[in-house]
Amino acid sequence: MEKLTMDKIVAYCKQYGFVYQGSEIYGGLANTWDYGPLGSRLKNNIKDAWRKRFIQENKNSYEIDADILMHPRVWEASGHTTSFSDPLIDCKGCKSRYRADKLIEDNTDEINPDTLTDQEMIDYIREHHYKCPKCGKSDFTDIRQFNLMFETHRGVIKDDMGGLVYLRPETAQGEFVNFLNVQRTMRAKIPFGIGQIGKAFRNEITPGNFTFRTIEFEQMEHQLFCKEGTDSGNYRFYKEYAFEFLKDLGMNTDKLRYKDHEKLAHYAKEACDIEYLFPMGWGELWGTHNRTNYDLSRHQEYSGVSQMYLDPEDNSKYVPYVVESSVGCDRLTLAILCDSYDEEVLEDGSTREVMRFIPALAPYKVAVLPLVKKYHAEFASELKEKLSKYFMCSYDETGSIGKRYRRQDAVGTPFCITIDDETINHGMVTVRDRDTMEQIILPLEEVEQYILDKIKF
Amino acid sequence: MEKLTMDKIVAYCKQYGFVYQGSEIYGGLANTWDYGPLGSRLKNNIKDAWRKRFIQENKNSYEIDADILMHPRVWEASGHTTSFSDPLIDCKGCKSRYRADKLIEDNTDEINPDTLTDQEMIDYIREHHYKCPKCGKSDFTDIRQFNLMFETHRGVIKDDMGGLVYLRPETAQGEFVNFLNVQRTMRAKIPFGIGQIGKAFRNEITPGNFTFRTIEFEQMEHQLFCKEGTDSGNYRFYKEYAFEFLKDLGMNTDKLRYKDHEKLAHYAKEACDIEYLFPMGWGELWGTHNRTNYDLSRHQEYSGVSQMYLDPEDNSKYVPYVVESSVGCDRLTLAILCDSYDEEVLEDGSTREVMRFIPALAPYKVAVLPLVKKYHAEFASELKEKLSKYFMCSYDETGSIGKRYRRQDAVGTPFCITIDDETINHGMVTVRDRDTMEQIILPLEEVEQYILDKIKF
Repeated sequence: MEKLTMDKIVAYCKQYGFVYQGSEIYGGLANTWDYGPLGSRLKNNIKDAWRKRFIQENKNSYEIDADILMHPRVWEASGHTTSFSDPLIDCKGCKSRYRADKLIEDNTDEINPDTLTDQEMIDYIREHHYKCPKCGKSDFTDIRQFNLMFETHRGVIKDDMGGLVYLRPETAQGEFVNFLNVQRTMRAKIPFGIGQIGKAFRNEITPGNFTFRTIEFEQMEHQLFCKEGTDSGNYRFYKEYAFEFLKDLGMNTDKLRYKDHEKLAHYAKEACDIEYLFPMGWGELWGTHNRTNYDLSRHQEYSGVSQMYLDPEDNSKYVPYVVESSVGCDRLTLAILCDSYDEEVLEDGSTREVMRFIPALAPYKVAVLPLVKKYHAEFASELKEKLSKYFMCSYDETGSIGKRYRRQDAVGTPFCITIDDETINHGMVTVRDRDTMEQIILPLEEVEQYILDKIKF
Repeated sequence: MEKLTMDKIVAYCKQYGFVYQGSEIYGGLANTWDYGPLGSRLKNNIKDAWRKRFIQENKNSYEIDADILMHPRVWEASGHTTSFSDPLIDCKGCKSRYRADKLIEDNTDEINPDTLTDQEMIDYIREHHYKCPKCGKSDFTDIRQFNLMFETHRGVIKDDMGGLVYLRPETAQGEFVNFLNVQRTMRAKIPFGIGQIGKAFRNEITPGNFTFRTIEFEQMEHQLFCKEGTDSGNYRFYKEYAFEFLKDLGMNTDKLRYKDHEKLAHYAKEACDIEYLFPMGWGELWGTHNRTNYDLSRHQEYSGVSQMYLDPEDNSKYVPYVVESSVGCDRLTLAILCDSYDEEVLEDGSTREVMRFIPALAPYKVAVLPLVKKYHAEFASELKEKLSKYFMCSYDETGSIGKRYRRQDAVGTPFCITIDDETINHGMVTVRDRDTMEQIILPLEEVEQYILDKIKF
């Protein structure tokens, strides 16, 4: 098939009900996206799969669900109030605004802007006479650091700084500030993990590439609390655990790669991304980070509450190390969408579009199709209703059976059940496989278990 | 048992890992709450149950997941920018701030403040010399209307009003603005429904009663789009459908009641709450509203995009009516927590605390307990690992078996599996029921299916 472009996947998602533009009837709110019936179900299935691997089946792992609004001191402790910012410059000609680091990145591979100070960045831009991508002028302001946290105010008086709160820019701090709560109430012994799925917000001025980078997004994170000395082993474990999970989701390993961070955050001992080959190029998908005991130490310092753990193994007392495994749920959903899209040329020369989701991720598990509406619709609707007690089930009685198969292929439904005279007279149904397009005949009473076996994760 | 108080349920939730205070190590952020491992799993199970009934099994129902940040015009169309506000007054003595309507409500049953204008409210308060609950003075300011929407700003310049966005105060508008998207992409025919689970935010100055009313909360909503004339029938259907759902969740019907709204919103034709008898009294739990075609008409007017539906049944064209079914997920979780709590006096005179969740809602479905750690722990951990592929499974090897049963009772685990010599020598396990405390002996290979059958919803 031709190379999949981002424009194509955006249009496809909109056409079939995976993802719509946010507030579309009002002309859209830039870089917000609403998941439609198929997208929200796909995303939910991804979350459920993550929960199964990272919480349910994972030894000593606990999920929490912390509020988006947290005490402002949390973001002082984490360093976000002082250093979670973008280096912005304005074009003096047309007033367009840019991230200085991105401007350098887009213009050269010779230098990594992450290694430069603000002054070095703007000097570099001026020395190389970089032009404004919009008006072509080469006259930029100095760099100002712009904090990416969204602010809001609680209570009545807006000017009252006491009421200032942030929309969390990451979910991780929810796990850190609840370390002691979880440890105590679950009587957890180190090593143990705290995971969370939740929304975070970043006031990015250069978001883009569909749902790859948005101002509002959902993270799935797991923080393992462990003893110093075991951290590197656990770091390697979670690097691989994430990769295996992506394989289990059916992802094409040719489009996945590890990338170790060149420049580590000051608190990080080891850090690595799993990148995916998106239509616009390789992009960060999943981060694994050995964060040392930085996070809990900072919270201990800023809250005044000891974050020490008394290890019953050897009676030692310490602030635990943290190994973080973090993935953007929207980004992973996008990767799965891109990875699953296929165009298959059939024997008759026609092309069919197929979303090759593994059955566990497919929004609808099965579609029930009456061969002839007049004769088979009633029976088919009853079967649809019955199967809907077990899994998501679609129903379609419009158009030729071939067209209906194509529609289900396009949204990734792994099985189609056709109801015809054989069903009504002899209790046999035709089950058609999305990928092989092969059909088998099954007794009606075996269908439910047949599908249940196929959709396991 | 003694009457359950809210203080007791708060302490219980904190002790066992259901709900913690938000940002607790920083002294807490008022009226924010973090769900711990048991609470987040309980809440998730409630969401899954809702999804099953309101989307999966419900005819023509589709789930979406819209962004929290929406175009500001959405809130003009919905009326929130002008009339989503509380009538606030300040005590001139101690500067405490109150909702005038609540002050009247707390002092008298003789008048319904919802029927009064601002001026009538403050007049009433002054005539009756209501005292400030804090300082006892009877000297209040006039009423000011305070909008409950949290504001934030996108982009770099804070003063730029063009960047003003709100945190959505309700999820419903996400369903309304996506009516056409869902209808088109799902080729949906009226009547059809759009449901959503998501967070909303309200800058309430008098939140309280634990997670009953908070500034950040999660809604589960279903909007049925239907033709005028069918609206009242559908309204009655969803009133009952919600009640049946609550019964299916195992709730005590003595503590549930319908309450029709005395005063209808200007756009509503019929409205009714299901109330639950919380520890602090009857409180709103679930709303069913016949919203007429108000919502879509307003969006049609404000967006300029036709929200008309061409009905293939009779070729008529109309803006659909909406029947809303809406419940606060946190509030329902709180109701389930209160409803499930039980203290049972045993034959020996001791008391056991039990959370009587139905198995489908219980955070852990089963706990595996080795009778003697030394001899049975290895086998028990292996079984725990095996069963964790199917459902949430706990493991406990510490303390007497009686104490371990009590711990599982306290967090509502419906089944305990004890591993002893019988298991290791003859492959038989003891399965103990939380509610009856009866024990049965099962062959090891039947355990998984036994539990799976019990936890179905």
